[in-house]
Amino acid sequence: MTTASTSSQPSGAAPNGTAVNGAGKPSKQFGFDISDKIAGEVTKQDVWSVFSPLAGHVPQDSLNLGQGFMNWAPPKFIQDAHTDALQNVAANHYQLPRGNVRLRKALSKYLSSSFKRELDPNTEIQITAGANEGMYAFATAFIRPGDEVIIFEPFFDQYVPQITFNGGVPVFVPIRAPAGAEQHNVPASEWKVDLDELRSAITPRTKMIWTNSPHNPVGKVFSEDELRAIGRIAEEHDLMILADEVYDCLTFDHKEHVRIAALDDFWKRTVTVGSAGKSFSATGWRIGWAVGPANLIHPLLAAQTRIVFCCNGPAQEAVAVGLEQALENGFFEDQIKAYEERRAVLLEGLDKLGTVPEGAYFVLVNTSRLEIPADFEIPTLIEGRARDWVVAWFVAQTAKVVLIPPTDFYSQPHWNLGSDWIRVAFCKDTDTLRAAGERLLALKPYIRDA
Amino acid sequence: MTTASTSSQPSGAAPNGTAVNGAGKPSKQFGFDISDKIAGEVTKQDVWSVFSPLAGHVPQDSLNLGQGFMNWAPPKFIQDAHTDALQNVAANHYQLPRGNVRLRKALSKYLSSSFKRELDPNTEIQITAGANEGMYAFATAFIRPGDEVIIFEPFFDQYVPQITFNGGVPVFVPIRAPAGAEQHNVPASEWKVDLDELRSAITPRTKMIWTNSPHNPVGKVFSEDELRAIGRIAEEHDLMILADEVYDCLTFDHKEHVRIAALDDFWKRTVTVGSAGKSFSATGWRIGWAVGPANLIHPLLAAQTRIVFCCNGPAQEAVAVGLEQALENGFFEDQIKAYEERRAVLLEGLDKLGTVPEGAYFVLVNTSRLEIPADFEIPTLIEGRARDWVVAWFVAQTAKVVLIPPTDFYSQPHWNLGSDWIRVAFCKDTDTLRAAGERLLALKPYIRDA
Repeated sequence: MTTASTSSQPSGAAPNGTAVNGAGKPSKQFGFDISDKIAGEVTKQDVWSVFSPLAGHVPQDSLNLGQGFMNWAPPKFIQDAHTDALQNVAANHYQLPRGNVRLRKALSKYLSSSFKRELDPNTEIQITAGANEGMYAFATAFIRPGDEVIIFEPFFDQYVPQITFNGGVPVFVPIRAPAGAEQHNVPASEWKVDLDELRSAITPRTKMIWTNSPHNPVGKVFSEDELRAIGRIAEEHDLMILADEVYDCLTFDHKEHVRIAALDDFWKRTVTVGSAGKSFSATGWRIGWAVGPANLIHPLLAAQTRIVFCCNGPAQEAVAVGLEQALENGFFEDQIKAYEERRAVLLEGLDKLGTVPEGAYFVLVNTSRLEIPADFEIPTLIEGRARDWVVAWFVAQTAKVVLIPPTDFYSQPHWNLGSDWIRVAFCKDTDTLRAAGERLLALKPYIRDA
Repeated sequence: MTTASTSSQPSGAAPNGTAVNGAGKPSKQFGFDISDKIAGEVTKQDVWSVFSPLAGHVPQDSLNLGQGFMNWAPPKFIQDAHTDALQNVAANHYQLPRGNVRLRKALSKYLSSSFKRELDPNTEIQITAGANEGMYAFATAFIRPGDEVIIFEPFFDQYVPQITFNGGVPVFVPIRAPAGAEQHNVPASEWKVDLDELRSAITPRTKMIWTNSPHNPVGKVFSEDELRAIGRIAEEHDLMILADEVYDCLTFDHKEHVRIAALDDFWKRTVTVGSAGKSFSATGWRIGWAVGPANLIHPLLAAQTRIVFCCNGPAQEAVAVGLEQALENGFFEDQIKAYEERRAVLLEGLDKLGTVPEGAYFVLVNTSRLEIPADFEIPTLIEGRARDWVVAWFVAQTAKVVLIPPTDFYSQPHWNLGSDWIRVAFCKDTDTLRAAGERLLALKPYIRDA
């Protein structure tokens, strides 16, 4: 145990479990040598395992606006399709490693217009075990030892091990917040990538750039101009692009989601991943897809075939039917409206300190003006972490609302860019969001006037 | 095109696409460099993609006794459990990377007696995205570059890339067939591992031995003595054991399935994988498990968390309920009886040239006496393969029955051990098996007298 006044410095903190014992031969702590790849993983307490009411650290009766899953079931029309699929003998057995034919056809119909090309379901669409495994298979197929991969900070925390497990080296370029965020709401569009910073991150070892739009956790939807600038840099250095667009069907206020793969001639260097979990409130179904030119999808398929062989069959069939019906029944338009309402309810409860998202389902809240009492007790679990972990712990204890500290989405040298923020998920029903707003009033006494 | 007389030599054949261009930098055939790991994968036509009626090579109206999936749906009681799970909000969303709690508890109840210890569902059982991904995660966690992994031939073809993708080197030790198999049925128990051959395969780089019992495709259920001998060699050299026991609930004639992890003190060096797909006729659900001591499961979990994050939620819940009910309703006992009947029907149709399996659902048939006409045309697809590929092609064209040539389950220097055999799956209903027996009569004119 320590107190807030001694542990909240973001920069002096020691890395918590980033390696077992440095670069040498790992210890026999597991009875047998483990691979170096996972040495940093086995001792780490990840953010999800701390900030979840189920994990036993934060109060169990907390409201969970942490991890990004919905507190409702998938829509009835795809549940019904799933129930039907369970009666279908073939759907219950091995699927083609490339994926269910009907699902690939439905995806071609659903996605071709936004990709601005007729997607070939046989060669340009690959079903993956969630977008997560699609990215892992992409990394397995294309990363060679020492290849550098540029990722933007804050990043989805799976990116780094996906890269390092496959021998790659992540290189970090921040998306920088606008000034004034500690005083008032800021639009997510004002968080910016500095193109000079991006250019200076490129070396002869750079192999690819990973983009993420709509962005988790910033909520930024990259504009056509921004994506074109990134794509041109990729083109100039002959880099691949991995476009994580799992929130593509969740953009607000009629903001158009632009795909980098649809701009200029970037298609030929880009693989785009998407997610049925995000699209249909079924994050536990583990169905995603990868879209790109046949010459890039073919190696990804070869890798995936050996990693998972194929994906869950009944869920693939259900998502196929779901997409067919969603194109007819206005599901995606209605879903956006529902999320816009949830966003409004949440922002109302956040005292105007949020980054107003244009897409995805997170609000980054600026916590600069939150003053944690110097005698507030910090458990060992939180020691050595940046200020945002202390804030998240304080919020959980004081208001019984669980939020996610974002410095796990930054490289350690850039913790300072994330340590005054906290991530709030609004993929929760409006009653829960209103109740969370009420509970957060308990923080009022600790918020310094602007 | 070529003819049988010029292409059926097993040994002189060139490896078909085992590397893009040797050990150097890969070509830019995919527009960007691919990783060396998958160089051997991207040009290979695997056996499953040739010998399937859906793949467009063999006659579409063939009976498929090739790939090992059932031509029936999972039993109604787990289908119903799955339908119920779709109504359960939490089951549709992210699961714990370690897996559904109810499923881990059900597995502890189901498995503890055969492991001869009370399995801790919190630390000793890990749910995986099929046994396949469980093995991949195990390889990712424990294989270090250059580590040698001993596997027995014939092997499940996924083993080799699971090892090599993670930097390991497979070392092959054959399970040798008994004499006389070209004259009469032989029991699978007479296929044997030569322990001296196993010992001589061990080097200072050997890290682990992978066992498989009941064995695919031999149908051998390793005896306690055989497993103890293997385990003692592992113990002597401090090797890990990966026990692939996905057919553990399918042993025939009251033969007991013995777990190597339950013998002597081998538990502490062994991870055992199992499969809901095999247990419940749901090969497309992609739910498996890994069981072992906490110190070995912990690194496996760390790897899996980054590869797939978690497994399909509704299917996990359904398998949990299914196991609970199967322990009460005699499902596994009835399933064995049904497979014994299928095995009898198939062996009846095979003219007494089969290896009689003690477990799993394959019969290896000896084809030495099958004489393929010298003018039989072999397509380019089959050129350069061993004799068994030609036999499988001939059977598909002549009898319209699809079978699997097993040399893909042997290292090339040992193709000669597999080239006179063919694998027949009997996880098909008895009508299909009888019909296949009828069709195979078309081969009679080509079978030389004993």
